[in-house]
Amino acid sequence: MQKGVAVGAHPSLPDLQGFGRRPMHVSPEEIYDIIVYQVGAVDAFARACGGRLSHVKAHGALYNMAAKDRALADAVAAAVRDVDKSLVLFGLSGSELVAAAQAAGVTSAAEVFADRSYQDDGSLTPRGRPGAMIEDVEASIEQVRRMVLEGLVRAQSGREIPVRADTLCIHGDQPGALEFARRIRAALEQHGAEVRAIGA
Amino acid sequence: MQKGVAVGAHPSLPDLQGFGRRPMHVSPEEIYDIIVYQVGAVDAFARACGGRLSHVKAHGALYNMAAKDRALADAVAAAVRDVDKSLVLFGLSGSELVAAAQAAGVTSAAEVFADRSYQDDGSLTPRGRPGAMIEDVEASIEQVRRMVLEGLVRAQSGREIPVRADTLCIHGDQPGALEFARRIRAALEQHGAEVRAIGA
Amino acid sequence: MQKGVAVGAHPSLPDLQGFGRRPMHVSPEEIYDIIVYQVGAVDAFARACGGRLSHVKAHGALYNMAAKDRALADAVAAAVRDVDKSLVLFGLSGSELVAAAQAAGVTSAAEVFADRSYQDDGSLTPRGRPGAMIEDVEASIEQVRRMVLEGLVRAQSGREIPVRADTLCIHGDQPGALEFARRIRAALEQHGAEVRAIGA
Amino acid sequence: MQKGVAVGAHPSLPDLQGFGRRPMHVSPEEIYDIIVYQVGAVDAFARACGGRLSHVKAHGALYNMAAKDRALADAVAAAVRDVDKSLVLFGLSGSELVAAAQAAGVTSAAEVFADRSYQDDGSLTPRGRPGAMIEDVEASIEQVRRMVLEGLVRAQSGREIPVRADTLCIHGDQPGALEFARRIRAALEQHGAEVRAIGA
Repeated sequence: MQKGVAVGAHPSLPDLQGFGRRPMHVSPEEIYDIIVYQVGAVDAFARACGGRLSHVKAHGALYNMAAKDRALADAVAAAVRDVDKSLVLFGLSGSELVAAAQAAGVTSAAEVFADRSYQDDGSLTPRGRPGAMIEDVEASIEQVRRMVLEGLVRAQSGREIPVRADTLCIHGDQPGALEFARRIRAALEQHGAEVRAIGA
Repeated sequence: MQKGVAVGAHPSLPDLQGFGRRPMHVSPEEIYDIIVYQVGAVDAFARACGGRLSHVKAHGALYNMAAKDRALADAVAAAVRDVDKSLVLFGLSGSELVAAAQAAGVTSAAEVFADRSYQDDGSLTPRGRPGAMIEDVEASIEQVRRMVLEGLVRAQSGREIPVRADTLCIHGDQPGALEFARRIRAALEQHGAEVRAIGA
Repeated sequence: MQKGVAVGAHPSLPDLQGFGRRPMHVSPEEIYDIIVYQVGAVDAFARACGGRLSHVKAHGALYNMAAKDRALADAVAAAVRDVDKSLVLFGLSGSELVAAAQAAGVTSAAEVFADRSYQDDGSLTPRGRPGAMIEDVEASIEQVRRMVLEGLVRAQSGREIPVRADTLCIHGDQPGALEFARRIRAALEQHGAEVRAIGA
Repeated sequence: MQKGVAVGAHPSLPDLQGFGRRPMHVSPEEIYDIIVYQVGAVDAFARACGGRLSHVKAHGALYNMAAKDRALADAVAAAVRDVDKSLVLFGLSGSELVAAAQAAGVTSAAEVFADRSYQDDGSLTPRGRPGAMIEDVEASIEQVRRMVLEGLVRAQSGREIPVRADTLCIHGDQPGALEFARRIRAALEQHGAEVRAIGA
């Protein structure tokens, strides 16, 4: 809290064994309850530490499910709005979740990914497929620069597709993640962009 | 919410199989986290329904553990205070939990039991022992009347002990519970007491 | 055990909240482990009671998933075979699970349903759809009689489809279930069929 | 299995968050069911791998609880016997669990600890106390040698107490564990003892 980090909740499907990465058939009502429950719990810890919760990003399979299924997306957005309408809801740029947030009157942050390749419809190339991960650091930084400053990303097909880059996802559990983050920040600042915490 | 019911959280030990009724050796730090987590989740549901959380009462074994163990009681009180200092914390009248709430600057509600008999130290007769439950309705109502209006209860030994009756516990899952509650309310009102929701 | 009831295991997806009724994306390897784990646990209780496990029937969503997905069906059959090759594996008549059992060298019992209507491909009409449940007891008994004695069932379309009726599923948690079971048994015996426990 | 390792089950209290290390108030009946369930599950994996389960050692808090509480110890021994009476039950040398195994007709293996110091009653010095862990490798090897070959261990008080050393516990998750195990084995073999898997 003292360092000005914005705290977010990362709610998940109720699948402890599978770490929330296995899609499950859940109803919008179940998703609503899951989000309220988990966001409420994290919010309480943020408050107990003298801070406040600023944003929500669905985890794992739930993030991808809500990107494509509008009924689930609406349930996520309604839950966030009903718990605290000042929360910012993250969603994949161009996804149903961003649209659902807008419809629900919830502030959204459209998310782009530094090291994932894109399909023509704006979705991420699924992890199993060739080229899903961008392993070259320079290529990754260049993709970030274009998404942030030009609002465009080159899909695997070579086609240019529009994106909105309010927030950038970098996985913190990979080797070199810290150095990678530093280089991206430096590249963005060199081009005149300012990197800030959500809500700051 | 529309009927003016005060909503409380009833946090429990993490023991789903045992319904929170089996004492566990947990540290004060663990208890703090358990309370923050569960109170936060319930608080979020209350807010999502357009209401607010008004009070917290520990469930099952945790209630009894925190009544006697000051370190656990302090952890419960600190967690409630840190999540929302306007919450009212319930605790057995005369227990460590009520003392801990006072020390933490948390408003407490001292609780008395309609259908349980008392020991000389103000604790409840453990469930397994003879006479733990008061099965005669008239005797139970009389015990409530004296606790509320005179601040006294007659222990199993016959000794009169002082109690503070801010809130009264009636188990809602027993046959005749509703009728029992109505008769207690009527008896209290007949003697000039007013029954209100906590915080109302 | 003393009454000669055959004991079966009813393993489920790891979804306690959803009672195993929500389909989940699980790999064949995960399914294998889930089946070994749960069948082993029930087997141990059967042995501790002086009996033995005789059969296995997947529960809820897992039953339906393994009826249609051959890779999951193979995983279920392999797990049953590897735990105890004398176990009988239940599967919907005509399903991938029955085929997988045969391929794995596991004895299967093809299952038919007394009170569910069928589609032309031998699958059950999904619960949400009109006419999924056969509510008329006489119609239900007649369906059972034909499935058992003629090996045929009339699908919703009116088409006659072949079934193999080694075992009959009746839900025990519905009102009138016991009387329903008695009447089915009487009808079958009246037509010369004998009702026995699996493996007896 | 191919390497001749003896496979054991390590059943635990139902406390996933606390890794089974927090004592809980559980009844003997609950303990019986917990042991049957978990031993059955591991047994099934051993069989599925073409092997068999050879022994059972309670984990964490349950091990210590069953060492001192005869009713719990009896429940553990009965569960092991009822699942498979050829299983060997591990228990702290001199504990109630070893006595319970004997009374139940279950083969026991009395366990000694290489790197833990002992109290006069044969119990281990609790982890929090000074000198609970023997950190000097030579001292630890000497303690093992005496326990195995002389049936004696010097308690913290200096008093010599008798132990029965059928099996030796070494924690595999500590740095240097492998080298430590090799040195203990070499020391024992140098003194003419043979190290074998349980049941071999």
